Amino acid sequence: MPPKHWQESATETVQVVLPNDSNPLGFMLGGSVMHLIDITGAIACHRHTNTLALTAAVDGLEFVHPIRMGDIIILKARVTATFRTSLEVEVEVFSEEILTGRRQPTSRAFLTFVSIDAEGKPLPVPPLRLDTSDDQARSLAAHARRATRLAHRAKRD
Amino acid sequence: MPPKHWQESATETVQVVLPNDSNPLGFMLGGSVMHLIDITGAIACHRHTNTLALTAAVDGLEFVHPIRMGDIIILKARVTATFRTSLEVEVEVFSEEILTGRRQPTSRAFLTFVSIDAEGKPLPVPPLRLDTSDDQARSLAAHARRATRLAHRAKRD
Amino acid sequence: MPPKHWQESATETVQVVLPNDSNPLGFMLGGSVMHLIDITGAIACHRHTNTLALTAAVDGLEFVHPIRMGDIIILKARVTATFRTSLEVEVEVFSEEILTGRRQPTSRAFLTFVSIDAEGKPLPVPPLRLDTSDDQARSLAAHARRATRLAHRAKRD
Amino acid sequence: MPPKHWQESATETVQVVLPNDSNPLGFMLGGSVMHLIDITGAIACHRHTNTLALTAAVDGLEFVHPIRMGDIIILKARVTATFRTSLEVEVEVFSEEILTGRRQPTSRAFLTFVSIDAEGKPLPVPPLRLDTSDDQARSLAAHARRATRLAHRAKRD
Amino acid sequence: MPPKHWQESATETVQVVLPNDSNPLGFMLGGSVMHLIDITGAIACHRHTNTLALTAAVDGLEFVHPIRMGDIIILKARVTATFRTSLEVEVEVFSEEILTGRRQPTSRAFLTFVSIDAEGKPLPVPPLRLDTSDDQARSLAAHARRATRLAHRAKRD
Amino acid sequence: MPPKHWQESATETVQVVLPNDSNPLGFMLGGSVMHLIDITGAIACHRHTNTLALTAAVDGLEFVHPIRMGDIIILKARVTATFRTSLEVEVEVFSEEILTGRRQPTSRAFLTFVSIDAEGKPLPVPPLRLDTSDDQARSLAAHARRATRLAHRAKRD
Repeated sequence: MPPKHWQESATETVQVVLPNDSNPLGFMLGGSVMHLIDITGAIACHRHTNTLALTAAVDGLEFVHPIRMGDIIILKARVTATFRTSLEVEVEVFSEEILTGRRQPTSRAFLTFVSIDAEGKPLPVPPLRLDTSDDQARSLAAHARRATRLAHRAKRD
Repeated sequence: MPPKHWQESATETVQVVLPNDSNPLGFMLGGSVMHLIDITGAIACHRHTNTLALTAAVDGLEFVHPIRMGDIIILKARVTATFRTSLEVEVEVFSEEILTGRRQPTSRAFLTFVSIDAEGKPLPVPPLRLDTSDDQARSLAAHARRATRLAHRAKRD
Repeated sequence: MPPKHWQESATETVQVVLPNDSNPLGFMLGGSVMHLIDITGAIACHRHTNTLALTAAVDGLEFVHPIRMGDIIILKARVTATFRTSLEVEVEVFSEEILTGRRQPTSRAFLTFVSIDAEGKPLPVPPLRLDTSDDQARSLAAHARRATRLAHRAKRD
Repeated sequence: MPPKHWQESATETVQVVLPNDSNPLGFMLGGSVMHLIDITGAIACHRHTNTLALTAAVDGLEFVHPIRMGDIIILKARVTATFRTSLEVEVEVFSEEILTGRRQPTSRAFLTFVSIDAEGKPLPVPPLRLDTSDDQARSLAAHARRATRLAHRAKRD
Repeated sequence: MPPKHWQESATETVQVVLPNDSNPLGFMLGGSVMHLIDITGAIACHRHTNTLALTAAVDGLEFVHPIRMGDIIILKARVTATFRTSLEVEVEVFSEEILTGRRQPTSRAFLTFVSIDAEGKPLPVPPLRLDTSDDQARSLAAHARRATRLAHRAKRD
Repeated sequence: MPPKHWQESATETVQVVLPNDSNPLGFMLGGSVMHLIDITGAIACHRHTNTLALTAAVDGLEFVHPIRMGDIIILKARVTATFRTSLEVEVEVFSEEILTGRRQPTSRAFLTFVSIDAEGKPLPVPPLRLDTSDDQARSLAAHARRATRLAHRAKRD
């Protein structure tokens, strides 16, 4: 499999925050944000691997600002690193106020997806081209997150 | 209000087609596509007007190819013309197969939105800059669609 | 296939407009109305053809009055014309206020559906009986809409 | 308040059974049928009282035949009796197969709704005209169901 | 099949009442409560039978207090009696206010489920152990509800 | 505010995995699991604080086994540590097969919620009683996760 550049799978999506994604105060539910993060990240994964995928882990998920019902929510996903049968995607989330156009970052997360075939068996993923020092730094950070997670899991088992 | 270029409000969104948007044959429901077309078009409208909006009309909505459950659906919206308190947005829809990356156009529609304030009263909209001959041609076509629609309505009343 | 009268497939449905179909101002989303229009029209199509169907086009969709959250929405669908493997359905939409019973027309659309088998192949549809001059006028108008749409498409391609 | 005839509030609705209302075998979930029964009954209640309403009880709810995903579901509601601040609605449910048009009864239920104002306080309801012996028999049966239910509740408390 | 104790299949679930389960007054829809009652009861049935199931009847469903949007809803289900290929489950519903923790009973229902195989054929269900006089009283009451229901049905046919 | 024991707010919920929470292979979507994790964790938080809350962060979210459509999903939440205006909740997720009753762990996550008033202002939370060495170990681990997260954030800013 030839390596692929992250820009070939970069994904951006927008939605309007509707009442059913909101709590009674009118703030978007954390779980609804997570749901969109997962779907947007999965699309970037599909575009890199051209396979089906399962979510395997989420690291560093933070909610910095709440998003209000009626706001626009914007999600941007890019592949940061590839492993043997899995890869990591960074998803950044922004809110945009309709009446002012003001946009601010609200969340960020790193999701690991496993590439699978129709029987659910893991598949090797195309390597990620790391052309710039920024690409390389992101990939290193992804490998560090993965090592930390595997170390935690080993300690727990 | 200073004029705005269509690129300032251009909107693109992607989703995965899930079972509940599909009929028993596994094709995406026309109504689900329409729902996404309306929301994507409305976001482009919000970005041009920085106001709330109501959908007023839909012209030329066609479904050329069905979209399958599990495919990615991509919607692109751009403002084509502005009127006094309303504007027209073109929304193009594409499907993208996960296993091949093959993308093909599936639908297209022209939506007219009315800009409103919090009481539902119409508001004037910023004019659209028409820099290129393509911009001008799109605006002319939008005015023609509007004239046809108003003529039909007059005949009906 | 013996011809069928439009009354054999006429379809009416009612719903209460719930919060998730509404924008933050409490008006029903245009896209939610379109979704119901498509489903109601498809049921009239199923009843005429006794087959599965795909939405092919929507003409003349207008939103004359907004519908408020908590209102009742009423949709009425009738087949207006049949072609070889497709047919046109008119859907009229009304809102009804719970506290007053006041009913007013809010939308109207003409949907074209293609009759398909389980593999998605087009199927011939039973002809429509045109008993009255009103039936004939509706069918003529449907054929005119179709001709306009096909002419537009030809020009575009 | 002048009495009203049940035909003034009779309500009929149709829907297509979609995947999310179905279990993995492709049968419509009992809970999804109940949800539609409640909404259809509530609309008949709203039309009789022109007030808001709360569901108070459900009697005699049976599921005689399962409904399959892809079928059309038809619900018919009529007011059967009025009490002081509440009334009873009968809801009958039918399935209709798309490929054959075969329709069969699948469920039936009697729902009691309380008429309320915007603060949730009970409101008197318009009496029901009982013109025919059938109307009178239905009302008697409704009063019997209510007496049985109140007797059960008294015994329980 | 060895008999099973009701505690082996007892099921409890909690949810937050979100906007889309609520009417415009902010009260939870009766139909949404019914939907949760059906799903919770079905899980208790699955755990007793280890089979798929269909809802066959609902008895004695009452709504004593409305539940408000934003409240927590708690549902508790227990098998009360087994018949040849079906069983009865009692579901009790409580609301819990977030700001005070106050919990009160809001609904109660008795659901009959039929145990089925993957083709929808009825299957015998494991008998229910009746260890205490309370267990026996509940089973007797369930048999009485079933006899009443079957008698009604016989009279109707 | 007197300290509270984690058992006073421990929360368990069950659901059946329906088609709309599943991908085309029949596996539950990661994002749907996350949504349930967030809601279950939020209920435990509400029960500890008797306030509204916002999700602030998610740590250590892993998906060990996929959950299949039609399975039962079980979520258990307990408060592990309290900070000044926030607290951490651990949520464990299990799947249960209907036909065998086999239960296995599938996910686990640590969620941090901020307690807020109706204007969205942070509120102090009741301290957590740490009676056993297990309670103390969980609280220590929670403080370590928080320190790691804050250190990461400081480095990023």
